[in-house]
Amino acid sequence: MNLTVQNLCEDLQSVRTRAPLIHSITNFVVMNNTANALLAIGASPVMAHAIEEVEEMASLASALVVNIGTLDRQWVESMKAAMRTAQGRGIPIVLDPVGAGATAFRTQTCLQLIEQVPPTVIRGNASEIMALAGQSIKTKGVDSLATEKEAQSAAFALAEKYSCVVCVSGAIDLITDGVTKTLVRRGHAMMPRVTGLGCTATALIAAFCAVNKAPLAAAAHGMTVMGICGEIAAEKANGPGSLQVYFIDALYSLDSAGVKDRFDLI
Amino acid sequence: MNLTVQNLCEDLQSVRTRAPLIHSITNFVVMNNTANALLAIGASPVMAHAIEEVEEMASLASALVVNIGTLDRQWVESMKAAMRTAQGRGIPIVLDPVGAGATAFRTQTCLQLIEQVPPTVIRGNASEIMALAGQSIKTKGVDSLATEKEAQSAAFALAEKYSCVVCVSGAIDLITDGVTKTLVRRGHAMMPRVTGLGCTATALIAAFCAVNKAPLAAAAHGMTVMGICGEIAAEKANGPGSLQVYFIDALYSLDSAGVKDRFDLI
Amino acid sequence: MNLTVQNLCEDLQSVRTRAPLIHSITNFVVMNNTANALLAIGASPVMAHAIEEVEEMASLASALVVNIGTLDRQWVESMKAAMRTAQGRGIPIVLDPVGAGATAFRTQTCLQLIEQVPPTVIRGNASEIMALAGQSIKTKGVDSLATEKEAQSAAFALAEKYSCVVCVSGAIDLITDGVTKTLVRRGHAMMPRVTGLGCTATALIAAFCAVNKAPLAAAAHGMTVMGICGEIAAEKANGPGSLQVYFIDALYSLDSAGVKDRFDLI
Repeated sequence: MNLTVQNLCEDLQSVRTRAPLIHSITNFVVMNNTANALLAIGASPVMAHAIEEVEEMASLASALVVNIGTLDRQWVESMKAAMRTAQGRGIPIVLDPVGAGATAFRTQTCLQLIEQVPPTVIRGNASEIMALAGQSIKTKGVDSLATEKEAQSAAFALAEKYSCVVCVSGAIDLITDGVTKTLVRRGHAMMPRVTGLGCTATALIAAFCAVNKAPLAAAAHGMTVMGICGEIAAEKANGPGSLQVYFIDALYSLDSAGVKDRFDLI
Repeated sequence: MNLTVQNLCEDLQSVRTRAPLIHSITNFVVMNNTANALLAIGASPVMAHAIEEVEEMASLASALVVNIGTLDRQWVESMKAAMRTAQGRGIPIVLDPVGAGATAFRTQTCLQLIEQVPPTVIRGNASEIMALAGQSIKTKGVDSLATEKEAQSAAFALAEKYSCVVCVSGAIDLITDGVTKTLVRRGHAMMPRVTGLGCTATALIAAFCAVNKAPLAAAAHGMTVMGICGEIAAEKANGPGSLQVYFIDALYSLDSAGVKDRFDLI
Repeated sequence: MNLTVQNLCEDLQSVRTRAPLIHSITNFVVMNNTANALLAIGASPVMAHAIEEVEEMASLASALVVNIGTLDRQWVESMKAAMRTAQGRGIPIVLDPVGAGATAFRTQTCLQLIEQVPPTVIRGNASEIMALAGQSIKTKGVDSLATEKEAQSAAFALAEKYSCVVCVSGAIDLITDGVTKTLVRRGHAMMPRVTGLGCTATALIAAFCAVNKAPLAAAAHGMTVMGICGEIAAEKANGPGSLQVYFIDALYSLDSAGVKDRFDLI
C-alpha cells in the first residue's frame, strides 16, 4: 500500500466533515481520553456496553471499537452482540486486545471474539499480536517486551488467517493485510508514558475506517495521525501530563498543511 | 425569573463556604471530570453506585446527580433507590438523560426514573429533552442534531408534566419550570469538543441546588458559571485538551469580581 | 525510621530501572490518573478486576493496590482473591479504604478484607483510619473532617493489631508501624482540590513497596515524592486543572538532584 499525503489529508477532511459516530465498548481507564481524542479529530464518540442497547447502538454507528482493557465476563456478551450487529450491517470493527498474553482470560476471550466475528482491524502491541497468533511471548501486564520486528510473522499469520488487517504499534508501527506491509516511523519516545495512547490509536483507526473502505489505508492513516500529533505535542511538553493535553490540542488543530509539513521532515 | 449578578455571586459564595456533599451516580467517561469540577467550585463530590450503600450515601448528601451516560441494568436499581431516598428527605435530584432518544433502553429507563421520582431538575441537550417529551427526533449517539429552540415546547411540556425544572443546554441554554423561561447566552463553540462538559453542567446545577431552594435560579446559576468559565478557558486554550484544563482552573478561581466582569461584557 | 535523602533517591532510581508491575483493583474515578502517575514514576501499571484473571494477574505483579473508591459487591470477591494470591507469594499489598466511615458497606468491606489478609500498608485520610480502628468520626463523603493528629491513636492501634504499616495522609502525613512514627510535612494546600491524589499516593506507595522490602520506608518515600511533586506543580499551576497536569510532569522529571533541592528547603 502507498501511504500518500493526499489520501491521508482527504480522509482527515472526511472525518471532520462527516463526524462519524464511533461506538466504543472500551475499558474504564481510557474512556475519557478516547472520547476526547475522537471529538478532537472530528468524530462523534458514544460509549455503551449494556446488553439491552449494544445492538441498537452499534447499528447506528459508522464504526465499532471493542477494547478488552478492563475485561469483565458480563461485558463479553455485549461485545459479541455488538460485533455480530456490526458484521451484519457491514460496519467496520476494530479490536484492541489489551493485555492478551498476560492472562489466559484475555487471550482466550480475544480469540473467541475473533473466531466469532473477524474484526476489520486488530491493533495491539507486539506481545499482544504474538499471543493471539499462538506464539510464546514475554509480556509485562499490558506492556510489550517485544518489538514490532519480532511480531512481524505473527501479524502476517493473524491477518491471513482471519482476512483482516493487523497493526502492531510500537516505535515503528507495522500494518499488514497478510500480503503487503506498511511501516509508519513516527511518534515520540514519551508517548508510552501516557496511559491509553494505544487505545486512542485504535479509536482513531476506527474513525478512519468509517470514512475509508480500505482498512489497510485507514489503519495507516490512523497511526500516522497519532504519530504526527505525538511529535507536535512532545515538542512543547515537559512530561507526559502536558503531552496528553497538547496531544488532544494537536489532534484538534491538525490540517492538511500540518500533515504536509511533517511529511517533508521524513 | 431574573438572573441577577448578585444572586449568582451569593450562591457561588455559598457553595464555596458550605462545600455541599454531591452524591453522583454517573457514567464512567466523566467521573473524573465531574469530581474535579465539583472540587474546583468548592463542593465535595462522592461517587457511589452499589445498592448496598446508595441509600445511606444519598441520605448524607446535599444533592443527588443521576446520569445514565454508560447505563447498565444493575445500576438502574441503585439509581431508583437513591432517588427515593433523596425524595424522602427533600434532597434535590438532578437527572442527566445522556443519549435519551439514541436507544430505547435509555429513553425508557429515563422515563421510568422520572415517573417514579420526578427530579428537581432535568438537564439535557435538545434531542434528549425532545425524546423524553415523546417528540420524534434525530440524534447522533449522545450528540444532539436539534437546537434549543426546536426543543422549547418539549421542555415546557416536560417541566409542566413532572413539576420540575428543565434545562436544555446548547449554544443558548433554555431553562424553564413550564411557565417562565430563562435563556443563558454564554459559553464557547469549542466546549462541545470536550467530552462530558454537559455532565459537568449537571453536576454544577446540583451544587447550586444544594445551596438554593429555587431550582430555576440554581439551574440558571449553574449554566451561567459553566458558560463564563468556558469563555475564560477558551481565551487561553489552543484546543479542547487545554480547554479542559483551563476550565477547571477557571472554576477554581471564579469570584464575584470575575462574574461581574463577564456580565458587563453582555 | 530515618527518612534520608539517599534512601529515597535509591528507591526512586530502583522504580525507574526495574519498572515494577503494579496491579491495581481501583475505582472508576481515578483509574486514568493512577495509571498515568505510575507510568510517570517509571512503574508499569495494570488494571484488572475480573474474577477470572485477578489471581493470575496478581501473581505477575510486584505489588497489589486494592482501592474501594467505587465499591461494588461483585468486585469484593476479586479483591479477596487477588489479596490471597499476593499474600501467598509475598507480594506487598497496599489498601486504600476510600470513604470508610461514610457508609457501613465501605467500613465493613474494608474490615473484612483486612481480617482476611492484613495489607502491607493501609493509606487513608484521618476519618478513614479512625473508622477502621472503630473510633467514632465525622466524615463528609470521601473527605475527612479530622486531622492526622486526631487519627494518631487509631493509626497506631490499627498498625499494631494487623502488623501492618498505616499511613494517614493530610496536611502532615503520619506513617507508623505501631511502634515508631514518621511525619512528612510536604505538599500544597491545593492538592485536595484535585480528585484522586490520595489514590495516587496509594499507588506510589505500592511502587516503592515493590522495590523496598521495608514498608515503613516505602510509605514514607511514596508520600515524600507526592509532596515534593505537588509543591513543584503548585508553583506553576493556576488552579487544580493545571496542577494535575504539572504534577504528572513533575513525577516524570523528578531525579536525585530535584529531591535534594527540596530537602534543602526544609
